Amino acid sequence: MSEVVSVVLSGGSGSRLWPLSRKSHPKPYIPLPDGETLIQKTLSRVLKARPKDTVLTVTNREYYFLTRDSFNAYGKTHPDDAAPFRYLLEPSGRNTAPAMACAALWAQQTCGADTVLLFMPADHIVPEIDAFAEATRKAVEMAQKGELVTFGVQPTAPETGFGYIQIGTALPPGFRVSRFVEKPDEATAQAYVDSGEYLWNSGIFCMRADALLQAMQTHAPEVLAAAQAAWDEAREFGDAWELGGSFAQAPDISIDYAIMEKATDVAVIPSEFSWNDLGAWGAYAQLLEPDADGNRLLAPESLVEDTHNCIVHSPHRLTALLGVEDLLVADTPDALLIADKSRDQEVRVLVDALKARRHQSYDINPTMHRPWGTYTVLEEGDRFKMKRIVVKPGEKLSLQMHHHRSEHWIVVSGTALVHVGGTEKLVMTNESTFIPAGTAHRLSNPGVIDLVLIEVQSGAYLGEDDIVRFDDVYGRVEQGSPAA
Amino acid sequence: MSEVVSVVLSGGSGSRLWPLSRKSHPKPYIPLPDGETLIQKTLSRVLKARPKDTVLTVTNREYYFLTRDSFNAYGKTHPDDAAPFRYLLEPSGRNTAPAMACAALWAQQTCGADTVLLFMPADHIVPEIDAFAEATRKAVEMAQKGELVTFGVQPTAPETGFGYIQIGTALPPGFRVSRFVEKPDEATAQAYVDSGEYLWNSGIFCMRADALLQAMQTHAPEVLAAAQAAWDEAREFGDAWELGGSFAQAPDISIDYAIMEKATDVAVIPSEFSWNDLGAWGAYAQLLEPDADGNRLLAPESLVEDTHNCIVHSPHRLTALLGVEDLLVADTPDALLIADKSRDQEVRVLVDALKARRHQSYDINPTMHRPWGTYTVLEEGDRFKMKRIVVKPGEKLSLQMHHHRSEHWIVVSGTALVHVGGTEKLVMTNESTFIPAGTAHRLSNPGVIDLVLIEVQSGAYLGEDDIVRFDDVYGRVEQGSPAA
Repeated sequence: MSEVVSVVLSGGSGSRLWPLSRKSHPKPYIPLPDGETLIQKTLSRVLKARPKDTVLTVTNREYYFLTRDSFNAYGKTHPDDAAPFRYLLEPSGRNTAPAMACAALWAQQTCGADTVLLFMPADHIVPEIDAFAEATRKAVEMAQKGELVTFGVQPTAPETGFGYIQIGTALPPGFRVSRFVEKPDEATAQAYVDSGEYLWNSGIFCMRADALLQAMQTHAPEVLAAAQAAWDEAREFGDAWELGGSFAQAPDISIDYAIMEKATDVAVIPSEFSWNDLGAWGAYAQLLEPDADGNRLLAPESLVEDTHNCIVHSPHRLTALLGVEDLLVADTPDALLIADKSRDQEVRVLVDALKARRHQSYDINPTMHRPWGTYTVLEEGDRFKMKRIVVKPGEKLSLQMHHHRSEHWIVVSGTALVHVGGTEKLVMTNESTFIPAGTAHRLSNPGVIDLVLIEVQSGAYLGEDDIVRFDDVYGRVEQGSPAA
Repeated sequence: MSEVVSVVLSGGSGSRLWPLSRKSHPKPYIPLPDGETLIQKTLSRVLKARPKDTVLTVTNREYYFLTRDSFNAYGKTHPDDAAPFRYLLEPSGRNTAPAMACAALWAQQTCGADTVLLFMPADHIVPEIDAFAEATRKAVEMAQKGELVTFGVQPTAPETGFGYIQIGTALPPGFRVSRFVEKPDEATAQAYVDSGEYLWNSGIFCMRADALLQAMQTHAPEVLAAAQAAWDEAREFGDAWELGGSFAQAPDISIDYAIMEKATDVAVIPSEFSWNDLGAWGAYAQLLEPDADGNRLLAPESLVEDTHNCIVHSPHRLTALLGVEDLLVADTPDALLIADKSRDQEVRVLVDALKARRHQSYDINPTMHRPWGTYTVLEEGDRFKMKRIVVKPGEKLSLQMHHHRSEHWIVVSGTALVHVGGTEKLVMTNESTFIPAGTAHRLSNPGVIDLVLIEVQSGAYLGEDDIVRFDDVYGRVEQGSPAA
């Protein structure tokens, strides 16, 4: 039996969930109402369905540390599910076909050409794990015979936001695919549902690496060529491979368009699990229980008066509603959205407008993830900026210097080891220290618990680009990656 | 000719303008869209109508420094309008009758019993200053003869939120009042407007001190008794008189109920000026120009898509609106209100609910005024709280100590003189220092420009009540007033 690798495809920003999702903090990494993220749920599901199989995650290189932290945290709390975690890092987003081609090239080289790859997006919710595991078992069985296998979901409504698959002749344990159909209009979708011949196209696939590469060679050779070049240029470090710049030459194309709609050896497994891709706020709201007035509130400080059928996400502030209905309210520290909730698909239009305006709220989340931990911008004002910084045990920031700002560090929890101007000292909880402009400095956490500190920057210029890096344990001196 | 004193009545919190107004930051002190506050506009108006006359402000003692700062700032930029500013401070709010009685007692003692008092609320907008000045001139003329004079405004709509005055026989330059009517229903209000015999009751009055006190003795002796006792107990310091605790014994009653509706020597001056008492958000919105879609926006970062006839106050955050109409959105750093704009009168209900819940947003504004300057709570989190502190030139905080928190001061602008544990040092711009828990300390601004600093408190308990005051130049050691 050939090896099976679970491949998590973690691309896409989920712009219809703005302002909760951002380009730099996309949908798979958003905490859901139960506290878990979609990528944690995906990992948990795949490890239950395919225990011990290697998990390869294909994601943008910007999300590597975020993903790895998330997976390592899961591994620590679930030692019995331990599986090797590997990462394939994209320099830019290029849709599913190039990502899957690179995963197949990685598998061919590191596991063998007959490796079976079980591809799944990182942003699905699938409550029925047993049904998912059963579908997976059938898909692997078919894929081992060389079929390109897709997972079809029994439609429960005439959704116009999904693609559909028409079932063909039986091919146990699944069916041959008769044809793929793009997002239909509502009448067509209703006809599909009524016919009983159509399934939703779930975006979950299973195929042998060599079968996928062969199909690419036949139907999308330009995708394969770019993927091959990017793989040949890949830099390996530890558990991750960073694809080379040629990746950007690959066409931005989905696996459906590139292969599935053209190939002949395509099979479908009808699946019994339900499925929520959290495509927009309406889908997110399904995770919240409605109150007696139909309001779905994630707003611990809310005050609601004569208000009906609203969706409110406001975890951190007092939000008062008076005499309104059918609104979507999404409140985040730096941006507020108020919309007619029936128009949640159009939130994407707002994000495009923000991007055109170069407004940072389309990209930056107040909390940014770094290899050593996180920082959250709390406040910016005239001549000052404040951050809450969390440094993980044993981690250290780069040795750095700023020309235009002094930095003040107040230790709120844990212990900091501070190198400043050639000397080093420990700064304990409730103590503080400051780094004058022009002085080389480094911050590290020598302890065994998180170091939490408040950084206050003061000076006339406070841009993230005022940084000179002398040394960085995460290799960021050469790359010129973003802020420490 | 007897002396004329302009009396500004600055009570009331304006709870229907929540969350912009708070109990501790009431309506007269809110910056309007043009940057000026209502109390500044009131002062400017009264000094143009009555130049050089003493201005006595009756307000809660909590607003003394806020009012004085505001008036002194006006005085500096308008040296030609200079007039003596005096303050009469209430220990608690008791409506207009007790406040006006105390003002008359103050005038009787400090200026003479025949002093003419021109009373006006601090929260009106009166654009036509010349018309206001002309009405004032007439009112003073009548008051000097002993009449109790009220200002009537020509009604422009059948408003149900105002009281009405029926005009009686001519009494040049005004009219005898036939009767006062409380807030009528809409049909009655329409009949009043159509009749031409009624004016809106503006809440502006003019009367001689002795005439007012005489009328009080006749019609509201219990108000006068409490006012007299509070005045007898008053503490004088500099430009202010703080009324004694007996003030709390006065009935909470308006001057209309207490005197005007009962007395016979009551006259009205029909006034030509227009008038906005900024009673609720709808009135506030009149200060904003509508855009082509009827939206009135004070929201520099707003993003508005297919949205009509909304009112948005969101000066500091990105606010995106999609497909909504007739909404009122008021966004402040710690509280958000979203309401059907036709229900702005009901905002008061929300405030009452917050008060019942003891939620601090009904009371506390993120920026608090103190004798020495201001502080703004920027962020609170686990084990830390951050404030932006502004200390005026030459001012100093109390000598104090905290048991449970250390404080870290980062100077963003200006120079700080810091006493800590018996030593003192200068902390310059972009430098910082910290005060360990249990150490006596004092902060002052020895310079000639504002000192701006960021304070980060760290510790397990961060309540404002963890403060021991040893010495305070504003006399707050005995009084136990709120935080330094």
